[in-house]
Amino acid sequence: MKPIKKRLLTPGPTMVPERVLEALSRPTLYHRSPEFKEVFLETRQLLKRVLRTEGEVLILTSSGTGAMEAAVSNLFNPGDSAVVIVGGKFGQRWQELCQTYGVNPVVVEVEWGKSVKVEEVKRAIEENPGVKGVLVQICETSTGTVHDVRAIGELLKGYDDVLLIADGITAYGVYDIPTDQWGIDVAITGSQKALMTPPGLAVISLNGKAQERLEKVRDRSYYFNLRKEIKQQRKGQTAYTTATNLVVALNEALKMIDEEGLENVAKRHQILAEATREGVKALGLELLSENPANGVTAVKVPAGMDGQEIVRVAREEFGITIAGGQEHLKGKIFRLSHMGYVDMFDVLTGLEVTEFALKKLGYTSFDFGSSVRAAMELFSKKG
Amino acid sequence: MKPIKKRLLTPGPTMVPERVLEALSRPTLYHRSPEFKEVFLETRQLLKRVLRTEGEVLILTSSGTGAMEAAVSNLFNPGDSAVVIVGGKFGQRWQELCQTYGVNPVVVEVEWGKSVKVEEVKRAIEENPGVKGVLVQICETSTGTVHDVRAIGELLKGYDDVLLIADGITAYGVYDIPTDQWGIDVAITGSQKALMTPPGLAVISLNGKAQERLEKVRDRSYYFNLRKEIKQQRKGQTAYTTATNLVVALNEALKMIDEEGLENVAKRHQILAEATREGVKALGLELLSENPANGVTAVKVPAGMDGQEIVRVAREEFGITIAGGQEHLKGKIFRLSHMGYVDMFDVLTGLEVTEFALKKLGYTSFDFGSSVRAAMELFSKKG
Repeated sequence: MKPIKKRLLTPGPTMVPERVLEALSRPTLYHRSPEFKEVFLETRQLLKRVLRTEGEVLILTSSGTGAMEAAVSNLFNPGDSAVVIVGGKFGQRWQELCQTYGVNPVVVEVEWGKSVKVEEVKRAIEENPGVKGVLVQICETSTGTVHDVRAIGELLKGYDDVLLIADGITAYGVYDIPTDQWGIDVAITGSQKALMTPPGLAVISLNGKAQERLEKVRDRSYYFNLRKEIKQQRKGQTAYTTATNLVVALNEALKMIDEEGLENVAKRHQILAEATREGVKALGLELLSENPANGVTAVKVPAGMDGQEIVRVAREEFGITIAGGQEHLKGKIFRLSHMGYVDMFDVLTGLEVTEFALKKLGYTSFDFGSSVRAAMELFSKKG
Repeated sequence: MKPIKKRLLTPGPTMVPERVLEALSRPTLYHRSPEFKEVFLETRQLLKRVLRTEGEVLILTSSGTGAMEAAVSNLFNPGDSAVVIVGGKFGQRWQELCQTYGVNPVVVEVEWGKSVKVEEVKRAIEENPGVKGVLVQICETSTGTVHDVRAIGELLKGYDDVLLIADGITAYGVYDIPTDQWGIDVAITGSQKALMTPPGLAVISLNGKAQERLEKVRDRSYYFNLRKEIKQQRKGQTAYTTATNLVVALNEALKMIDEEGLENVAKRHQILAEATREGVKALGLELLSENPANGVTAVKVPAGMDGQEIVRVAREEFGITIAGGQEHLKGKIFRLSHMGYVDMFDVLTGLEVTEFALKKLGYTSFDFGSSVRAAMELFSKKG
């Protein structure tokens, strides 16, 4: 039976709700029209609610990486130092961005799949006087691991000139994160994850402390110019043409989050993640992460198997796209996403295709159907 | 966890593929334009392939019932007799239509869930000389039961003036039915079943024998006038305004069937149906039908339970619409559809929600997850 449907269970892009697709396909608005201005301002307000911040929230037409670049290029001068937590591919991206912009990265290496220890962040700051920021992922997507950004925020309250810059690309909309309360000065996210919108928009928030820093850094990027954007976006404009249809779609998606309620959204992700973990464990497989995220679950591939083959079989023979590992984890893990527009039946589908693919590839040391049963038990108890 | 998605697992309307929804939302065509004429003629050709007939295939803007009414009102004169197989709600509908048009229904009663015996059809014809037709369902949707229309077609080869009129509303696109070869003179189907299109269009085919009959029957319906339609539709027109967007959508859906291949479509339905049956049996539940259909599975509700409650819990608490029973079967059965744009993961979802709902309603005499495992085993073997 050839697959007739395609299902997207990757940690971005994620499945887009019908309502959002419908919004996306509405007639294109002129980006300088009053009509668009209204949508844009409302979207910024809705984003503030998801980010739980009173800071400025800017929408950039780029991938999440664009917002990361904007943070590094707008908030550090060449020669500045920043502590960079590197526990996966996206930690490495912070490091590469620092190098690109002449910022000295003070790297805190973390084994992939583990969370950074706050003491190590503290030591890195203490040992490198003049550090101007800490760059971290709330969830390191490549390993499905959460860093304790709340604790890092606590720590940084003792350091006036150190900005906490958090990549929350696979965290906002998965968790209910009080950005301001946690002391996150700059938060970043993207449209194509838990915000349930196609790729193409990034979001960056800046609190007062971050905005003060902006004023002290000379312009080094033309497109990603946050001072210019703040000025424009306060008026419902953007410095350059924005992806208007995507903004309209994001607006709709944020309304869905608002209607469901951020707390309920977070609770849903929690249950979906727990069920996925229970399911995977029932197969005798191990999680990569010691502190697994609620948006994506990274699973270690059984010894002797190629994880890329699991991904291939799932896609080619069952029409389901799951994600493999990246960098040195390629072939060693596969990742099941349960982020965004996902419900319990999608999670069960992800476990089912895992079982089908494992079996096809000759891994049979598990009770067929057991991951699904384990997840169903959890849903039945908690759902 | 409140349901965030809605899934349609009813035996019509069924899930509509994204490609078909996209086609549906294209700009409306003028029904007399050359552009629409081309789409319309192509759609008729594609329908001929699904119905495997060289007869005239007409598209009516109505539900399937409209095509049933067209058959009765265009092919029988008042006072004519027709053998009507009544083994469910749709058999009853044939009977009611006969009564409406002054056609004398010679009813062959069949216990709901059982298939008609060909000998009984033969006896009904023999005992009622002058019978002008046999009205039957290929699949009686209300009970999920198949009648052996092929055998009835064989039988009718001995009766020159008896038309075989088959309601294939939940059969065409589920099975690969050689309409002409089986001796079906008039075949009927609807857009909203295995043809994967929203409701609003019916299809009726007439072979030479049926067309000859048309000429001998005086007009009794203005809207459902098949002689007029044949004349118009041969030219790519319709007698009255047709649902142009639905025709464009149906055209796309038929192309999908063509691409998958009718044989593969039929095989897919066969496997999905078998898996559903295996799953249901693993819960200790019984099928209603002695000859279950490949499009929809009717399941007997455990003693002491209200089947409507299963349907309600599935919809309200899990976002999944399944169907209950009709008439005297209301509350006694529920029906899981696996018709049209359905794959193995949808079938598993249907079984999952069945288990969740049963458990919620206090039925626990089954091994939780066992229906899913049974279906997965079957998919793993046959899929």
